[in-house]
Amino acid sequence: MRPLDVLQQSLHKRVLVEMKGGRSYRGVLDAFDQHLNLVLSSAEEVVKEVVTARPGLTLVRGDSIIYISP
Amino acid sequence: MRPLDVLQQSLHKRVLVEMKGGRSYRGVLDAFDQHLNLVLSSAEEVVKEVVTARPGLTLVRGDSIIYISP
Amino acid sequence: MRPLDVLQQSLHKRVLVEMKGGRSYRGVLDAFDQHLNLVLSSAEEVVKEVVTARPGLTLVRGDSIIYISP
Amino acid sequence: MRPLDVLQQSLHKRVLVEMKGGRSYRGVLDAFDQHLNLVLSSAEEVVKEVVTARPGLTLVRGDSIIYISP
Amino acid sequence: MRPLDVLQQSLHKRVLVEMKGGRSYRGVLDAFDQHLNLVLSSAEEVVKEVVTARPGLTLVRGDSIIYISP
Amino acid sequence: MRPLDVLQQSLHKRVLVEMKGGRSYRGVLDAFDQHLNLVLSSAEEVVKEVVTARPGLTLVRGDSIIYISP
Amino acid sequence: MRPLDVLQQSLHKRVLVEMKGGRSYRGVLDAFDQHLNLVLSSAEEVVKEVVTARPGLTLVRGDSIIYISP
Repeated sequence: MRPLDVLQQSLHKRVLVEMKGGRSYRGVLDAFDQHLNLVLSSAEEVVKEVVTARPGLTLVRGDSIIYISP
Repeated sequence: MRPLDVLQQSLHKRVLVEMKGGRSYRGVLDAFDQHLNLVLSSAEEVVKEVVTARPGLTLVRGDSIIYISP
Repeated sequence: MRPLDVLQQSLHKRVLVEMKGGRSYRGVLDAFDQHLNLVLSSAEEVVKEVVTARPGLTLVRGDSIIYISP
Repeated sequence: MRPLDVLQQSLHKRVLVEMKGGRSYRGVLDAFDQHLNLVLSSAEEVVKEVVTARPGLTLVRGDSIIYISP
Repeated sequence: MRPLDVLQQSLHKRVLVEMKGGRSYRGVLDAFDQHLNLVLSSAEEVVKEVVTARPGLTLVRGDSIIYISP
Repeated sequence: MRPLDVLQQSLHKRVLVEMKGGRSYRGVLDAFDQHLNLVLSSAEEVVKEVVTARPGLTLVRGDSIIYISP
Repeated sequence: MRPLDVLQQSLHKRVLVEMKGGRSYRGVLDAFDQHLNLVLSSAEEVVKEVVTARPGLTLVRGDSIIYISP
């Protein structure tokens, strides 16, 4: 198994994405590429415990990501 | 679907672009490339809740972008 | 021996992963690639001495990693 | 249209270049390359609201640029 | 002589590895690659004058390294 | 004209090199490469308004450079 | 002349190496590569005006270097 295979298994499931700078997202993983750029749908963004809904498809840039977990 | 396909779907529509350093843009996505360099038209820039209009075409460098959402 | 051979030997064993920004993980190493992207299972995250369980498979991005040890 | 086409359209026109670290330039765009390295003529530099004239041709390194607008 | 030849000469000898962020390691250099990823055995980690033993093989990511000396 | 052509025109002339971190150099540009690594002769370094002469040839690493101007 | 030619001329001579983060080295340049990784012998490290001798061969990673001068 390679790390990106884990993302393949998480497709269309909810994931937690922790970002540099204290930001995180929860949303359904709709797409990813080898740079770990992600597309999330039905996402919520959390910054300093403030939750903001992000309707539609959000493209998150891979180089700001620290980890992705279910 | 690949992450850049989401940008293709957002072409000529308004997007929110969150940048590193507390800066964000709202504008119409007129172009993008594989580095996530973007061209926005009719853009507004928001820095610390101060909104500045950016008339004309603004080229935003991809490596400062955290996420792009509708 | 090459550095990645050490990761090969640690597969399916518990490792400590120290990250930039004062974050660390303990978990079972289930996968890795040449960028040091890792997959951990049964992981615990430690930030400022607060421990959070991360059930399921966690994908940790290699470029935030400082070191990996048993 | 690709993002660099916007720079092609801005050649020999005045642009605003916002840099990381709170620095910005206004000047005539005389050249650019694919790294967004720029050459500005008749440039003014603004740092913390202090304006300094930069006569001659100024080469601005692309990786410090956040955005370029008319 | 090329810089990596120095690492070749230090193989299986104790080295001091100074890291970004005020962290350093002392340990036996067991492996390295062209990115300066290192494997140390019998390592001690020093952060703010606190020494922690790191038994087993520690993989240190090259891009956090400032210098390596005997 | 390409951005590096401007450096070609500045060869053997005095330039101002503004660096990240509040450091700048004035000196004669004796060489450069495509990474914007520069060689300056008869250089003066300015850090927080303190000027230090740098006799001989100084090699400045391109990735710390913000801009180069006459 | 190319920038790395200056390093060739400095081989086996004492150089000053200024690093990011307020660290500098003085030592004899024994080797270098195209990434500006350097090997210094008989080196002294200076951090906040505290001088530490670094006997033996010190490998300094190029990406932390700001400039190298005689």
